[in-house]
Amino acid sequence: MSETIFSKIVRGELPCHKVFEDEHVLAFLDIAPLSPGHVLVIPKVAARTLDEVGDAAAAALGRALVRVARAVKAATGSSAYNILQNNEAEAHQAVFHVHFHVIPKPSEDSGLGIDWRPGKLDSAAAAILLSRIQAHL
Amino acid sequence: MSETIFSKIVRGELPCHKVFEDEHVLAFLDIAPLSPGHVLVIPKVAARTLDEVGDAAAAALGRALVRVARAVKAATGSSAYNILQNNEAEAHQAVFHVHFHVIPKPSEDSGLGIDWRPGKLDSAAAAILLSRIQAHL
Repeated sequence: MSETIFSKIVRGELPCHKVFEDEHVLAFLDIAPLSPGHVLVIPKVAARTLDEVGDAAAAALGRALVRVARAVKAATGSSAYNILQNNEAEAHQAVFHVHFHVIPKPSEDSGLGIDWRPGKLDSAAAAILLSRIQAHL
Repeated sequence: MSETIFSKIVRGELPCHKVFEDEHVLAFLDIAPLSPGHVLVIPKVAARTLDEVGDAAAAALGRALVRVARAVKAATGSSAYNILQNNEAEAHQAVFHVHFHVIPKPSEDSGLGIDWRPGKLDSAAAAILLSRIQAHL
C-alpha cells in the first residue's frame, strides 16, 4: 500500500498532539475534531483497512481503545461518546491507514451524527449469511 | 448494572444467529441490520460502556473485530464497511451492554449513514485537552 500521513506521524517526521503510545499503537488528537476530545487511535504498522491488521496490533488496539475512551470521558466530562472506524472511501474513510475515532458526544449538535435505517433479518437470509460468513472465519 | 438481553444471549437463554465465539467474546447477526452482514461483537462479561471493559476482554474484542470484519467482507463482497460502538443513549446506544457493530456499506443508501461536521483544533485548546486526558491515562 502507499504511505499515508499517519506513517510519517508514527515515525515522528510530522508532529501530532500525542495522547498515548505503546509498542503497537499510537493515539493523538484529531486536528479536525467533531467535538473537543476527539482522538484517533491507530496501529503503528500501516494497514489500509481493519481486516488487514495483524493479531498483536488488533489486541493492542482493543486495549488502547478502552484506555483512551476512559481518559477522554474523564477529561471531557462527556459520558456519551462514539467509537467509529471507517473502511474505504464509500464508508467515509479519508486517510488510508486504519484509525479508530473516539468521539465525545457532549450534546445533540456536537460529535458524530448518525443516520440509522434498520431493516429486518429474516430466517432464510440469516441462514445464508451465517454459512457464508462462517466459511471465511 | 442491570441485566440486558445480551447477557441472556451469552448464556444461551435466548437464541441468536451465532457468527463467532471465544472465551471472552460473542459475535452474532444483528436482527435489525442496516445492511446484509451487519454483525454485533460483544464481550461476554456485561459492561455498560466501553470504558468499563477489562483488559483481557478488550484485547479479545480487538482480535475478534478484525477476524469478523475479514469474514463479513469476504462473505458479502462489500469491501467498504464501518465499525461503530455507541456509549450512552445520547450517543445512540440502545442496549446497555457494550457492542461493536460491523456494518457493510454496499451502496450509498445502505449501511451506516454518517453526518460529519468537523471543527478545527487550535494549539491552546489542544494543550489543555492533552494535559487533561493524560492526567487520566
